[in-house]
Amino acid sequence: MNNFEFKNPTKIIFGKDSIKKLENEIPENAKILLLYGGGSIKKNGIYNQVKAALGTATVIEFGGIPANPEYAVLLEALEIIKTENINFLLAVGGGSVIDGTKFLSAAALYEGLTPWDILADNIRTEKGLPFGTVLTLPATGSEMNSGAVITRAETKEKLSMGGPGLFPEFSILDPQVITSIPERQLANGLADAFTHVLEQYMTYPSGALLQDRFAESIMQTIIEVAPKVLKDPTDYQAASNFMWSCTMALNGLIQKGVPTDWAVHAIGHELTALFGIDHARTLAVIAPSHYKYNFEAKKDKLAQYGERVWNITEGNTDDIAYLAIEKTVAFFHALGINTKLSDYTKDFEGTAETISQRFTDRGWLGLGEHQSLSPDKVEKIVKMAY
Amino acid sequence: MNNFEFKNPTKIIFGKDSIKKLENEIPENAKILLLYGGGSIKKNGIYNQVKAALGTATVIEFGGIPANPEYAVLLEALEIIKTENINFLLAVGGGSVIDGTKFLSAAALYEGLTPWDILADNIRTEKGLPFGTVLTLPATGSEMNSGAVITRAETKEKLSMGGPGLFPEFSILDPQVITSIPERQLANGLADAFTHVLEQYMTYPSGALLQDRFAESIMQTIIEVAPKVLKDPTDYQAASNFMWSCTMALNGLIQKGVPTDWAVHAIGHELTALFGIDHARTLAVIAPSHYKYNFEAKKDKLAQYGERVWNITEGNTDDIAYLAIEKTVAFFHALGINTKLSDYTKDFEGTAETISQRFTDRGWLGLGEHQSLSPDKVEKIVKMAY
Repeated sequence: MNNFEFKNPTKIIFGKDSIKKLENEIPENAKILLLYGGGSIKKNGIYNQVKAALGTATVIEFGGIPANPEYAVLLEALEIIKTENINFLLAVGGGSVIDGTKFLSAAALYEGLTPWDILADNIRTEKGLPFGTVLTLPATGSEMNSGAVITRAETKEKLSMGGPGLFPEFSILDPQVITSIPERQLANGLADAFTHVLEQYMTYPSGALLQDRFAESIMQTIIEVAPKVLKDPTDYQAASNFMWSCTMALNGLIQKGVPTDWAVHAIGHELTALFGIDHARTLAVIAPSHYKYNFEAKKDKLAQYGERVWNITEGNTDDIAYLAIEKTVAFFHALGINTKLSDYTKDFEGTAETISQRFTDRGWLGLGEHQSLSPDKVEKIVKMAY
Repeated sequence: MNNFEFKNPTKIIFGKDSIKKLENEIPENAKILLLYGGGSIKKNGIYNQVKAALGTATVIEFGGIPANPEYAVLLEALEIIKTENINFLLAVGGGSVIDGTKFLSAAALYEGLTPWDILADNIRTEKGLPFGTVLTLPATGSEMNSGAVITRAETKEKLSMGGPGLFPEFSILDPQVITSIPERQLANGLADAFTHVLEQYMTYPSGALLQDRFAESIMQTIIEVAPKVLKDPTDYQAASNFMWSCTMALNGLIQKGVPTDWAVHAIGHELTALFGIDHARTLAVIAPSHYKYNFEAKKDKLAQYGERVWNITEGNTDDIAYLAIEKTVAFFHALGINTKLSDYTKDFEGTAETISQRFTDRGWLGLGEHQSLSPDKVEKIVKMAY
């Protein structure tokens, strides 16, 4: 097990009808900017629940944060924060709204001239403007971590940021919110959380026995509840385990003391930036090729995953490892998610070269668990995913 | 899954040679009371590591906190805190030293006349004097939770306390510390952590699929590393997984959203108070009888545990459930821990009645997952454990 530090101070308020508990969490004298996305919260009743819980607090609203939260839109919200002296942010939404709010939390206290530098120069945020979240879409885990991914349409870039100042003060998780989520987005959430676990697990074995078992626990739970969630989002047992699994998949716990990979995300982000493919679907496109290309390095862990998560009992290490990749592909398909780039765009030719060139231009010379996937190797992985 | 709230702000600093990182964690202008136990830290080098890391900080020392931290001893330390205007406590020890430090953290800011009231009246501590820990004995999980158990020899009582103000600011976990722990205490730590998981898991099934799998993960890991830890405490992989499992067994995570039981601990504490039996060993004495007495209520979960943790594949639910209890007893025996009260004292006659009467006197009318174990049922469980 590697040395690690772990601290996650976010307060989770989980369960049926928990949105009303929001009223206990807002600091006194808060001047709140309530941030949300495309307005679905006004149709599904969540907006009304939030407003009721906020009571007489001072609230300004900012809607319209898009999926893959867009820098240009966020700059408009930043202007409001500054002119209105906002001192508390409340994100009501999924990962995009929460990530956008994290950017605003950092940017509000950033002293540099250009907030994009926080992303471009990878500036760690030690202290941000305090914020809380009401989660409306289980998937990214952003509700209990300190990271965010922001998109800039102008330059077709999608970059990460983070730091200990960006943990939500609180996050409210009511699993009943999933009843109004379209099946496509539920499938995305399941695939996204599942792949988050893989990124932190599918590496060389490192003797972190407990972390491995926790990772396997989350994947087993997602596999168990996925068909129930898709068939009947009102199944509270399935919904609650889905929601908690998504949070636990990326709240820092399972990555502590282990090597992690994250090449699937790094490459997948480019597919979203280039083609607008849903984030989760880009992961399902890249993950199988990544594991096949790096089969020798990862086969021991792939076999452990095959045995423990997919209950594969026959065959040698190579057989089990290979079948585990196939099982993973079949799982994505069962969610209704295609796993080839050509399923999403006819213009896939040249994509591998484009992504490889972008990584070279950014100086990203080595991705993955050993930071050894050079741009030419990334090119091969993307081609395998056509 | 039940509704829950979860917040655990303790910073964990885990790994080889991590004690030296203590220097980064002590607040400026701290006037520190360094608390420890019987003095083993002066023999095994931990004391010197701590003192080196503290550098020129102002430190007063208080040693001699006994196993089952004793109220009368702690009052002496409380006097020092008050007369010396101590503003930070540093526990260097196992669960007893850390629990004692938590009592002091609460008592230092308690405004009532008699600090024992915090325990006797179950007063929740919202704010305590800040403290950190350097863990020297993996077992209780006290390093990452907000609970403590304090003993009062005068009245042969052992009572619990807690509250959100009692999380350590930080805890330093260097798995290398176990190399100097006697085998008896390593066995106790393994049994203690294992039983902590059982208390939060062995109830009626509640549909918390992820929490169940996390609990099973911890137990599987403890079972896997136990023989290695006992055979060779310098086996770092075994030591680190043992240490992290103990912390995760009782840091709040696996108890969220599920019913819990804790009757084994409530009864076990009385055996320590009456006979001075090691805490972990009282759990090994009571747990098997508790699960047999409550077999009908718990057999579904016992069977799940038998299948997933002990890999029992044959038999019906009752068979698997019963065999799972036997496997648990065998596990304690493999640790060198006896599981009958008569193994520890010849004076066991009358113990069941004494404990039952104590619970009646305290008004504890119902223990366990359904709070339905009345004192007469407790009496039967203890008799089964003779």
